[in-house]
Amino acid sequence: MEGLPLRGDLFDPDCPTRVVLDRIGDKWTVLVVSALSTGTLRFTELRARVGGVAPKVLTQTLRALERDGILIRTIYAQVPPRVEYQLTDLGRSLAQPIAAIQDWAEGHVGAVLAARNSYDSSVA
Amino acid sequence: MEGLPLRGDLFDPDCPTRVVLDRIGDKWTVLVVSALSTGTLRFTELRARVGGVAPKVLTQTLRALERDGILIRTIYAQVPPRVEYQLTDLGRSLAQPIAAIQDWAEGHVGAVLAARNSYDSSVA
Repeated sequence: MEGLPLRGDLFDPDCPTRVVLDRIGDKWTVLVVSALSTGTLRFTELRARVGGVAPKVLTQTLRALERDGILIRTIYAQVPPRVEYQLTDLGRSLAQPIAAIQDWAEGHVGAVLAARNSYDSSVA
Repeated sequence: MEGLPLRGDLFDPDCPTRVVLDRIGDKWTVLVVSALSTGTLRFTELRARVGGVAPKVLTQTLRALERDGILIRTIYAQVPPRVEYQLTDLGRSLAQPIAAIQDWAEGHVGAVLAARNSYDSSVA
C-alpha cells in the first residue's frame, strides 16, 4: 500500500500494528486460527471444536478474520447451502506464532494460577 | 497445584488456560513483556518505551503481570523511592512467543490493512 511503511512498529502508538495486535491477541481469534490450522471446517464443526463460544460471537470473529485476510469463507450452492472456512496464506503464516502462544498458555497455566494464589494470599 | 492438570487445553471452555490467554493476548501485556525482555526498567522508562499508555492502565497491567508471576516489582528505599520491574523466569519464557506475535503483527500489518480495504470496498 502506498504511503504505508514496509514494517510496523508496535512501540509507536500511532502505528496500526496495535490494531492488528488487538485482533490477533483476541482469545477467539487464537482458537479459530488454531482450529483451522489443521484444515477446512464448516461453521458447525468450528463451533463444536472451539467450545463454549456463542454462535453470534463466532460469526463476528469469522467475519473480522475474513475482513483481515486471515481466512476465506466459501459458500457451496446446495440445499441447505454449505459454508466452509479455511486459512489463507496470510492466515497460515499466523498459525505458527499463535501455536507458540497457545503452547505457552497450556503449558504454564498451572504456574500462573499458583502465582495468583500466592499473590492473593500475600495481600489478603 | 493439587487437582490441577499438568497441562491445560485451550479448546476446553472450562480450562483456566482461557483466562491466561486473555491476559497474555492483551496489547499492553505484549508491549510490557517485550519492553522488559531486554532488561530491568523503571516505571517512567517503561511508560516512555511503551508509548501512548495511560499511567493508570500501565499500573494495572504491571500489577496484573506481577500477580500472574510474569514480573517482579522491586522497591528501593531511597528518596524518592525507586521502583524497578523485571521479568521472572516465567516471564522470560513468555518473551519468545510474544516476540513471535509482535514480529508477525509488525511484518504483516500492511497485508492486513490491504485486506481490510479490499473487503470494505467489495461490500460497500
